[in-house]
Amino acid sequence: MSLVVQKFGGTSVGDVDKIKNVARRVVESKKRIDHVVVVVSALGDTTDNLVGLAAQISKTPPEREMDMLLSTGEQVSMALLAMALDELGQDAISMTGQQVEILTDTGHTKAKIRHIGADRVVQELRKGRVVIVAGFQGVTSEGEITTLGRGGSDTTAVALAAALHADCCEIYTDVDGVFTADPRVVPQARKLDEVSYMEMLEMAATGARVLQSRSVEYGRNYSVPLHVRSSFHEGEGTWVKSEDDIMEKAIISAVTHDFSESKVTVVGVPDRPGIAARLFGALAEANVNVDMIIQNVSERARTDISFTVATDDLEKVRKVAGDISEAVGAEGVNLDDDVAKISLIGAGMRSHPGIAAGMFQTLADKDINIEMISTSPIKISCVVRRSDGARAVQTLHDYFNLSE
Amino acid sequence: MSLVVQKFGGTSVGDVDKIKNVARRVVESKKRIDHVVVVVSALGDTTDNLVGLAAQISKTPPEREMDMLLSTGEQVSMALLAMALDELGQDAISMTGQQVEILTDTGHTKAKIRHIGADRVVQELRKGRVVIVAGFQGVTSEGEITTLGRGGSDTTAVALAAALHADCCEIYTDVDGVFTADPRVVPQARKLDEVSYMEMLEMAATGARVLQSRSVEYGRNYSVPLHVRSSFHEGEGTWVKSEDDIMEKAIISAVTHDFSESKVTVVGVPDRPGIAARLFGALAEANVNVDMIIQNVSERARTDISFTVATDDLEKVRKVAGDISEAVGAEGVNLDDDVAKISLIGAGMRSHPGIAAGMFQTLADKDINIEMISTSPIKISCVVRRSDGARAVQTLHDYFNLSE
Repeated sequence: MSLVVQKFGGTSVGDVDKIKNVARRVVESKKRIDHVVVVVSALGDTTDNLVGLAAQISKTPPEREMDMLLSTGEQVSMALLAMALDELGQDAISMTGQQVEILTDTGHTKAKIRHIGADRVVQELRKGRVVIVAGFQGVTSEGEITTLGRGGSDTTAVALAAALHADCCEIYTDVDGVFTADPRVVPQARKLDEVSYMEMLEMAATGARVLQSRSVEYGRNYSVPLHVRSSFHEGEGTWVKSEDDIMEKAIISAVTHDFSESKVTVVGVPDRPGIAARLFGALAEANVNVDMIIQNVSERARTDISFTVATDDLEKVRKVAGDISEAVGAEGVNLDDDVAKISLIGAGMRSHPGIAAGMFQTLADKDINIEMISTSPIKISCVVRRSDGARAVQTLHDYFNLSE
Repeated sequence: MSLVVQKFGGTSVGDVDKIKNVARRVVESKKRIDHVVVVVSALGDTTDNLVGLAAQISKTPPEREMDMLLSTGEQVSMALLAMALDELGQDAISMTGQQVEILTDTGHTKAKIRHIGADRVVQELRKGRVVIVAGFQGVTSEGEITTLGRGGSDTTAVALAAALHADCCEIYTDVDGVFTADPRVVPQARKLDEVSYMEMLEMAATGARVLQSRSVEYGRNYSVPLHVRSSFHEGEGTWVKSEDDIMEKAIISAVTHDFSESKVTVVGVPDRPGIAARLFGALAEANVNVDMIIQNVSERARTDISFTVATDDLEKVRKVAGDISEAVGAEGVNLDDDVAKISLIGAGMRSHPGIAAGMFQTLADKDINIEMISTSPIKISCVVRRSDGARAVQTLHDYFNLSE
């Protein structure tokens, strides 16, 4: 018996016509797959509208009530999709997180899934029904409604696929799959047929928006193959799966970019133990996610500490880093939001030395100055000037022949 | 310990400012009442918008999915009200029908409440919180979401007041209370301080829109005093309570009108047993609510059967009554939507003979022709031409001195 979980995001269910289109896709799928489970996001900008309503009432709404509010979005889209399927003669039933038993912890607005019951999902599938599940939402053991945070519907879909031992989880989106670079920056960018979980994780962390890290991690942990594909046509998209299952292993899979980060430098920090710990401890406490961190070897009694953060967090960082800088007697804090992070991703890097050198030389040949470098076994990231960003991506994509 | 259930309808929570206004009202109430439970409807025209979305997808959406869809409206407004209360420093918690345990039967879109658990409501009240409950929705013993049909939020409020042994149930609305006549028709109409459940039921059934019959019946069955009052100011509204508790018993309490009904006459029906049963059986099967029924004594072998129905149902009636008429050999069906039903309501009627005669004479004096008459112990209804409707109400209001 084949079983597939299909996830349709907010742009795929943006209005009534798109919902009808999704219903037709699902009916087509049901012809070739025994059991189909559909996970839906809220319609188009519903969630933003609800957040806007709450913001008009309170700057700090209680998170429990925020979840109560936001979870309605998916409930609307799943009911409408069930109606559209019924209209096409396909028996279907929509189910809330509570009805599916998507049990989470009590971390309102960013809850983590603890367990999925899914007994009733199986019962309904056995009746020949398509089961439509609300993405993004769960329920605590006390019956409180929770939401899973940004990208939560992907997480619901992958977790449900794991719980149901699905053959795969299909993520329908408004692009054709995962590309070797953002096609808006590199017109020759090529759709990847396959990519490993680890590569996908690095890509998500370095600017690729197509999948959220959390759902990829879930897929990796439970060995659920993910299929990222277009909601507008039937063509194959990109499979995300275990490295062992990848047929043709490329050395480099993709060049990604992230223009949403800023560089922060604490200048003239006294070179004594504990200061970095104090700085990054304070940032963590302020809920600031720090990405790259670089500390130069000090040749005098003082050193510079540079790091990157989301530009959205820059005001928080100004305050926190400024306070620490003053407290430890550093010379000051420089904030620079005019940077870009360019990354080269590829599982083959591990067995091919010289990739980093090639990357640096390519950028140097184009007079692109590298301001920070950070590496992992399958990734090299460089921070450059924002104005050099697109050119850096294009140059690297050409140099490593990624369009072939 | 005092406990009051307050119900705010869709117009009271029409937008963010109105929600903030409701929150202020609730905070004021909480100063003088130990425990406050608030039942809310969906924001303004949310429900109509959701119905519109469903209609774009299917003419006959599955009722289970309709409930899944519509129940989101109250969830939005209750979460926003909880945020607004929190913003004012009043601890509050919103609860779905499921969380409250408002158990209903499985009659989707028009479910009936079977039982209210409310243990958790009591727990939350004991913590000093205002508990906000989603109106209109319940849950079956299988965990399916149901809705209670038109006016369902009133029913939720009154049923909850009964389950919690509340001192009373306050119904907040956009009018000041229950009037001796519709003030738009009779400018001198007077707000009633008190009215009995039975009178209120008759008023609701004859055109007064302020309360739904079902919630009044609930109030009567469980002896919950209802207080219908304005959501815009603090003034007392109208108390609906047991006849025994009414201080000043008026002979006539109100004149109501209903312009939304039509008169149907099946002409020349063969006068033999079973035909009326067949006709009204078929109408009931088509889900048509019949109000007044009149059959003239037959002086020949044929008779006329007249009845009134909601004008919205007229097309259904044309079909059903037409079929029956043909099948039994009647002469035809006349449909007349140009009528008005005018009713005189008063518990004192029972002990004051001659009220009906006074009503008929008053209308005759103004040349208003009566086409149908129907009575109950505390009500007399007359069907007149639509164009005479407003004049009939005004005349009767004057004759019975209701503005004094």
